Amino acid sequence: MSKQKPSLARGTRDFSPEKMAKRQYIFDTIRAVFQKFGFQPLETPAIENLSVLMGKYGEEGDQLLFKILNSGNFSEKISQTDLDAGYKSLTSQISEKGLRYDLTVPFARYVSMNRSEITFPFKRYQIQPVWRADRPQRGRYREFYQCDADVVGTDSLLCEVDIIAMLQEVFASFGMAITIKINNRKILSGIAQSIGALGQESNLAIAIDKLDKIGKDAVNEELTVKGFTDSALQKLTPIFSFSGSNVQKLDFLTDFLQNSEQGKKGIAEVQQIFDWATTYGLNLENVELDITLARGLSYYTGAIFEVKANNVAMGSIAGGGRYDGLTDLFGLPGVSGVGISFGVDRIYDVLDELNLYPQSTQNSSKVLLSNFDAEVLPFALKVLNSLRTNGIKAEIYPETAKLKKQLEYADKRGIAYMAVIGADEAASHSITLKNMAKGTQELLSVAALVEKLS
Amino acid sequence: MSKQKPSLARGTRDFSPEKMAKRQYIFDTIRAVFQKFGFQPLETPAIENLSVLMGKYGEEGDQLLFKILNSGNFSEKISQTDLDAGYKSLTSQISEKGLRYDLTVPFARYVSMNRSEITFPFKRYQIQPVWRADRPQRGRYREFYQCDADVVGTDSLLCEVDIIAMLQEVFASFGMAITIKINNRKILSGIAQSIGALGQESNLAIAIDKLDKIGKDAVNEELTVKGFTDSALQKLTPIFSFSGSNVQKLDFLTDFLQNSEQGKKGIAEVQQIFDWATTYGLNLENVELDITLARGLSYYTGAIFEVKANNVAMGSIAGGGRYDGLTDLFGLPGVSGVGISFGVDRIYDVLDELNLYPQSTQNSSKVLLSNFDAEVLPFALKVLNSLRTNGIKAEIYPETAKLKKQLEYADKRGIAYMAVIGADEAASHSITLKNMAKGTQELLSVAALVEKLS
Repeated sequence: MSKQKPSLARGTRDFSPEKMAKRQYIFDTIRAVFQKFGFQPLETPAIENLSVLMGKYGEEGDQLLFKILNSGNFSEKISQTDLDAGYKSLTSQISEKGLRYDLTVPFARYVSMNRSEITFPFKRYQIQPVWRADRPQRGRYREFYQCDADVVGTDSLLCEVDIIAMLQEVFASFGMAITIKINNRKILSGIAQSIGALGQESNLAIAIDKLDKIGKDAVNEELTVKGFTDSALQKLTPIFSFSGSNVQKLDFLTDFLQNSEQGKKGIAEVQQIFDWATTYGLNLENVELDITLARGLSYYTGAIFEVKANNVAMGSIAGGGRYDGLTDLFGLPGVSGVGISFGVDRIYDVLDELNLYPQSTQNSSKVLLSNFDAEVLPFALKVLNSLRTNGIKAEIYPETAKLKKQLEYADKRGIAYMAVIGADEAASHSITLKNMAKGTQELLSVAALVEKLS
Repeated sequence: MSKQKPSLARGTRDFSPEKMAKRQYIFDTIRAVFQKFGFQPLETPAIENLSVLMGKYGEEGDQLLFKILNSGNFSEKISQTDLDAGYKSLTSQISEKGLRYDLTVPFARYVSMNRSEITFPFKRYQIQPVWRADRPQRGRYREFYQCDADVVGTDSLLCEVDIIAMLQEVFASFGMAITIKINNRKILSGIAQSIGALGQESNLAIAIDKLDKIGKDAVNEELTVKGFTDSALQKLTPIFSFSGSNVQKLDFLTDFLQNSEQGKKGIAEVQQIFDWATTYGLNLENVELDITLARGLSYYTGAIFEVKANNVAMGSIAGGGRYDGLTDLFGLPGVSGVGISFGVDRIYDVLDELNLYPQSTQNSSKVLLSNFDAEVLPFALKVLNSLRTNGIKAEIYPETAKLKKQLEYADKRGIAYMAVIGADEAASHSITLKNMAKGTQELLSVAALVEKLS
């Protein structure tokens, strides 16, 4: 085999120790909140049968699934006719498995397969990578982590309150100012009904979702193409222009949706969530009812959530909502669920940009023991063992080398202290401890060293 | 899309919350030891270019790599001629990427690609899944975690001492009695040389590795087939039959290998590792020099390690060794390294079989708040918030339901306490706390509840 310049596969990344420390800080913070709210960990395999994945993410999603070539002689039964039939039909002959595209469909598969063992309501969190054969670009990767919490088996709106509470707690822990946008699929349905476009709410939502980006006129144009009448667009006008507090919005909607049962149900749900959240003790200042929020909408049936960072130009950093019938696809009907997903890569970038990482995210050793005199190595090894026995992250420079080189090593590695051990130290059973940041040093006994670094 | 009975891909597994708790205990234990010894986390992508993976694991390994179908119209340029050329050549036309097969080759790629930023010696640990298209069987999976720690950029034997210390500490934490077997590639080379089969050490090692399983006669038979002379086999006899303490073995080898420079170097290395380990303070009672240990050997150049559980019939539960030239393959020569890999799935099974999991591996909520009277929900929500604000894992049953059902739920979920809140409790601003295991209950103020569960 020839020597080669190796490279990463497009859209994938290595995470160096420095990046890992920051990522672990993010994961640990979110995980701790999930657990405090009663969610338990679940992991599903990266490889799923394509029968589980295909058809769950729309036609584009099917294209973006990474598909795994069957093992063994996969091409044995392929003929020219198969080739002529095109790559899509060929794929089904030579590939039976694919990589997880999100955490939601595997979760639905798990719930469906284990329905008899699971205690419902089932609260699980899942932190694992997913894969999408998207065109890589800045901030978009082909392999990235998702970080989800879901409750299935209940339609209680207390779960929505928990989601708001978790979002607030996670981002407060990060010290990040955010806005939580909330909407309800039933309100969107009600709006469609009220403007005389019943059943057209998907097209309405897809268009209205772009209001921020393309503006009112372009949205109206898109809706016209989709068959919305002038009269419907006329009636829709106040929806675009309306602003105000959540209370004012709910008042407005109560009037606007007075003839839509669905719409009224949506308003009542939002109101109930706000009421319970307030009773629970949440401050709803950063929660905003946004009646244009749709988030794709394909499977949401109730609440819809989205979080944005206040002080950074960045897409949504978390999102979710209530869905019914996700496990229907796997033969288990009647399971309502609600979930939230944190966008770890974007949160990482926001924390970086706002310089919000705590200092302690470095996970280096606390102390490096010097190794420049082979004669005193026995004493140094004993000191090393004492430190570790007392739970202190410690290491010795593995080779006998000049002290200067070792000090540079400690500096580059971000190790806080250097324990210098020479002949004098060994003779007096003591250690010269150098504070790498301050440059100060002091002579300590082994016991004093252990105590200082504990 | 039709409803379907979903299934897992062959050789893959879901990890339920119960299993996750046990696995996290294993990972956390190993990770804590890695960090205490100065190793830092690294993660590499699951997807690698096949050019990085192919040719690194032998021909069988190439076959066992999971290969990913190229995106888009991969079959456009395929002709009947390509089909006729067979699936191996076809694979290279329709697949450029594969799934990580182990953590070592991606690590070598990372080191090679980032040589200018890395501070050597570089100590990293990596805990991630790998994939192999092996035939699944009991205890063998197609997707499984590896858990590795390696130091590269130094040939200091202090690193080998650290590995022995880490192995002892990890398994002591698990409460598991083990034997650490150690050997040295140079000793194996020396043996080959001493019996007049210089350069034949690979065949010698492969055969000798099977001694436990197939016995001396079968090993000799295999060696004969491989071209070992009768005289060589005659000289080899004492190697098979020799037993004794490590000191006795080293004495024996000193005599046996007196004419092999390589062999003498191997003995000196083992001796140095034992000496330093003893100085450091390790008890070497469970460390055994095993001159038949080879572990595939393909890339080991110095120390070879293997760990077995003493009280369970199970293959090795950890293994590793020193290698030189791993990054040679990627154009970075002269980097010596040594590493250890923990077999998490087997450790899981051993801990299960010996019933060694601590009780606290359950990660359920500590308390479930009842919800059987909608009138008192506001009080219950405030209690819930108080508990969580004080860091207590707590949840409320999301639906208003009969208390019996909720007690069953708490029981099945393994939640330790049920906080019963009815009209009386709400009126007196107190909670009836039921200990689920003992069945006892007591009336507590909110403050007393928080204190008791903190």
